[in-house]
Parts: sequence; structure tokens; C-alpha cells
Amino acid sequence: MKLASRRCASRDGELLVVSRDLSRAVSVPNIARSMQQAIETWDMTEPKLRAISDQLNQGKIDNAFDLHLDELESPFPRSYQFLDGSVYLHHMEKARKARGAEMPPNYKTEPLMYQGLSDRFVGPTEPMIFPDADLEPDYEAEVAIVVDDVPMGTLRSEAAKHIKLVMLLNDYTLRALTKTELPKGFGFMQAKPTSSFSPVAVTIDEVSSLWDGEKFHFSLISEINGRRMGQPNTGKDMFFSYPMLIEHACRTRSLSAGTIIGAGSVTNQDESSGFGCIAEARIHEQQTTGQSKTPFLKNGDEVYIEVFDSQGSTIFGAIRQSIKTLKGG
Amino acid sequence: MKLASRRCASRDGELLVVSRDLSRAVSVPNIARSMQQAIETWDMTEPKLRAISDQLNQGKIDNAFDLHLDELESPFPRSYQFLDGSVYLHHMEKARKARGAEMPPNYKTEPLMYQGLSDRFVGPTEPMIFPDADLEPDYEAEVAIVVDDVPMGTLRSEAAKHIKLVMLLNDYTLRALTKTELPKGFGFMQAKPTSSFSPVAVTIDEVSSLWDGEKFHFSLISEINGRRMGQPNTGKDMFFSYPMLIEHACRTRSLSAGTIIGAGSVTNQDESSGFGCIAEARIHEQQTTGQSKTPFLKNGDEVYIEVFDSQGSTIFGAIRQSIKTLKGG
Repeated sequence: MKLASRRCASRDGELLVVSRDLSRAVSVPNIARSMQQAIETWDMTEPKLRAISDQLNQGKIDNAFDLHLDELESPFPRSYQFLDGSVYLHHMEKARKARGAEMPPNYKTEPLMYQGLSDRFVGPTEPMIFPDADLEPDYEAEVAIVVDDVPMGTLRSEAAKHIKLVMLLNDYTLRALTKTELPKGFGFMQAKPTSSFSPVAVTIDEVSSLWDGEKFHFSLISEINGRRMGQPNTGKDMFFSYPMLIEHACRTRSLSAGTIIGAGSVTNQDESSGFGCIAEARIHEQQTTGQSKTPFLKNGDEVYIEVFDSQGSTIFGAIRQSIKTLKGG
Repeated sequence: MKLASRRCASRDGELLVVSRDLSRAVSVPNIARSMQQAIETWDMTEPKLRAISDQLNQGKIDNAFDLHLDELESPFPRSYQFLDGSVYLHHMEKARKARGAEMPPNYKTEPLMYQGLSDRFVGPTEPMIFPDADLEPDYEAEVAIVVDDVPMGTLRSEAAKHIKLVMLLNDYTLRALTKTELPKGFGFMQAKPTSSFSPVAVTIDEVSSLWDGEKFHFSLISEINGRRMGQPNTGKDMFFSYPMLIEHACRTRSLSAGTIIGAGSVTNQDESSGFGCIAEARIHEQQTTGQSKTPFLKNGDEVYIEVFDSQGSTIFGAIRQSIKTLKGG
């Protein structure tokens, strides 16, 4: 099942059930008005949404309409909680090396995770606005899950059943500010502005052949202005799995339904698969040629992130955003 | 005007207008169902709520009822964003000294602030549950503001007008985990479980004689099991003001209506006003007697936080919570 949120007067958007090929959609206000409402009542709502989804995929819904991706918000236009891990350790090792910073303590025994901005995400085809190009805007291509209510103290062995939806995530980052914020210890405030997600969120059964119960095995494509940055495999070199991230997140708190958990910028040890952010490309260039060449994002750039299935069909639709900087660059 | 949220089937609670003396209240579903809905439509909603408030204070509302504080959630039972500063630098200096940790870089040129858990706050008289007493549970007595929509880049000079509500805040902290999480740089995940707020949130006019446009001048009383911990003045030794916190928070993001901003554990240089958390009492004891005596919170303890006006009347009602630990201690 694939779900989306269409822009409307509500800050939560209007819930849509979307056909597998993303061509058609239907509004379902009698089942749930918003994605947030659906996830909070998932046990009751999911079978009803799935029945609509099955009929939609069979062309049997009378009031279905052609889906226009540019009318979509992120599947959750906002959320009560967004937690982002950093579990592709090669990314952190490269990023810290580029900053001349040490690796954090215990980074191989418990996942790094921060509480992220969630009060308003930018849509998958909306422009992303940065205040200043000199802050070194970067993207990070990631995969995020959405859970239902998770009790405090839930262990890894019980965690996977709480995973209800999967989305692509573009976790925008201002590299100039990570350098100054990380040493303060309080996490990211200015260095992590809002993020965007793929046009649709999908249930696990839509990607069952690419999900092993702990990790997804996607080739996560990202491009800037049509230039391929990379297509790393999300199942490789993932040091902590999604159930491990959930266990870590809920050790001293419950997680409310609709909590979004990302796993961090995807990168593989094998650099032939390229990169999932600019910072890594720059450090690779520095190491191999003595000079970083790929510029950080600037006004007018287009960032593209997508994943295809084995038949070459898009799973989540594409994140395709133009960059706008208010000054600098 | 004083506002509260009564526990109900909705995760957002039921909005109540509360009389100045906190004795009476009225439900206002025709104006706004929840506090979140009210703050998102504040320009339209506030005059209507204020008219009800005026009538309620004059005893002219027919369907008013006696207010029972134990039926209340935190004024925002959940929020899309909770940001907490640490601007009483003396607190940080003492806390870091106790841990043997350095002060963070630039701590006097820009405020420390973290993105906090906001998906479910605990109510002002609800028990607070910690997984393990050995994690050294502590409280922090704070004052928090609530803003309406704040555009990215709003400056200090324009920030104060966005402040719509004020509340007391108990920012629970697991001291054993701050020691391990702070050096990781990603902020607080496990070390800051959920927080609680005072029974009511009040508009600025309710505290106008104690507000100078930048800071509140409250004596912030806190007690554990009836033993006074302190009553520091919130307007003294506040290194960064609320408008400065807003300016810092919105440098690279807009802030959505309902964003809660705390200023950190209140403490004065003059230690005769006591403390606003256990950690400070312990370091004071260590320094003066060679031994920390005040224990961290344990099963069955009661935490109390309140502020009175110059006539001795409660402004926000009291946070009065019993502590429950699932193991240890």
C-alpha cells in the first residue's frame, strides 16, 4: 500500500491512497483525514485503507483521479517526533575526517541519534530555502521508517513489528554549522534545517523482497543537476539496524505513533557506488586529487533522490527539489 | 487569560478557559477544540477566548464548572516542537564542574539550545515514570514560552511579539546519561525523557508586572517531598533573553505556531536563593561539606514547582508529580 498527503488548508495535508505505479490516487476522508490520524489508529485504519488500495490497483475506484506529484506534501507534512540516526559509520568517519574532528565515544556500541526538527517538513517537489549559501548547504540521502506507538523499553526483538511505513528522506544539512554545533554537545539546531521526504510512504509488503527484517536493500540514487552522485546500497555497511535504532530511541521514553526514524546518510565502504551527500564527494576528491571540486548546494541547483525496484519501477516517487538561497553563493 | 487542556479521548486534550484563581473553567469547543488549534489560529481565536475569560472571571458563564487540577494534561499535551535553552550559565558551570567537563565553545556568544522530545508530555499531576533509578533522575525547574508562527530570520527586536503564552516547565533529566550523551555531540536522546508543564498556560498580560519585554521576574519555587530546594529569581543571571532565544532558534528555520521554548534550569549566582535541580544542590554540598547528600529522585518522591504573584496567589498552578521508577534505587 502506498500513501501520500495532498496540500490543503490543513497543516497536516489530506491523506491519499496512491496506486502502486503512482499514477492514480483517491482521497479517503471517511477513513482518515490525515496521515497522522491514520497512524494513530493504524490497527483499525490499515485494513480499510488496504481494501481501497487493492481496488485502486485494480482500477475499480470510481472517484480516483490522476496523481500530480507537485500537489503533494511530504507524507507527514509535520510530525510530533523525528529521530535521525547516523549508522553508516563510514559516512561519519569521512565527515569527521573532513572536519579534522575525532570520532564520538562509544560510536560502535550504541547508535548516534539526534532529535530532529519535525514541525514542518518541506514537500518532495517544493523549493528548499536556505538563508545563506555560505553556510555550505548539503543534502543527505536516507531511508526513514514510521512506527506506531512503541512502549518505553521495547527491545530489538520486539521492535520490527512497530514499523508500519517506509519513506525516502532528504536530511538537509548546513556543513558550516555542524562544525560549530557538534562540539557544543546539544545536537543540531541551526545546522539541520527542515527535511523532505519522498512523495509516498509505503507499507513493508510493498518492499518485502528488499527487506530482511532489520535492513532495506535499496540502491539509493541521488543526483545534483542531473549529475549522478551515487547509488549506495542501504543494506550494506549499516552498523545498527532499524530495530536496534528503535530499541535505542525508546530506552527512557515511549515513542508516539507517527514517530519518524531515519538511519543517516547512506554510504558504502566500496566507494565505487558513489556518495549520498556532497561532503563525502568532497573529501573523496580531496584525498584522491588534493582538491575538493563538487560545490555545496547553491541557488538554482536541483537535488534528486529515488529508488527503483528490480523491474525498474519507482517505489517511492522522486524527491526533486530546487534550491533557493536568500543570499551568498 | 489562563488556558488549560483537560484529559479526553483526543491526544491533544480538550481546551479549557480557566479563571484567574484556577477555581473554575469552561470548555470552548466552538472556539477551538485544542490548545494547538487555538495557537495556530491565534489572531482569530484569542479575542474570542478573552471574551469568555472576562465573563468567567466575573462569574457570568453558565456552563462553567469547578476545575480539578488532576484532570489536566500539560497545556500542550504534545507539541510539534520543543526547544530548550540553557541560559542560566551558572547552572551549566556548576553541572559541568560536577561532571569534570569543559564548558562548551562559544557559550557566551550564542545560546546553547537543544531540540527536545515533544510527542507526549506528562501532565502536571501525573506520575513520572523512569525506567531505572540508577540513571540518576533529576528535575529542572524552568519557565517556557509558546510562540505563534515565527518566520525564518526573525531578529530579537521583532521576536517578543511572537510570544503568546508562558508556562512553568519541569525538564526531567537523567544525569547518569548526560555524562555519556553530551560528549557524542548529537544532543539528548535518552538523557532527557519527557517533560511536564504547569496546569495552566497564561498570556503575557497576566504577568505584565513581572515581564520586562525580555525576561520574567518570578521566584521559581521547587521542593522535593515538601523540602524547599530553592526559589531563584528567573530574571536574574539570565544570560540570553527569550527574544534572543527565538532569534537563535529561527536563524535557519521557521518556527511553527505552538513551538515551546524553555530557557533552562533557573539558578542565581547568589546561592542563598537555593537551587532549581538536584545536581546543583549536590555540587554545592560537595563543595561546602565534601559530600553530596541530596539524593537523586527515587520511587515515591514528590516534585513540586510553583510561582506566586505579589499577592501570594498562584499564577500557573503547581506541578506536583510523584516519581515512579521501574527498577533500581
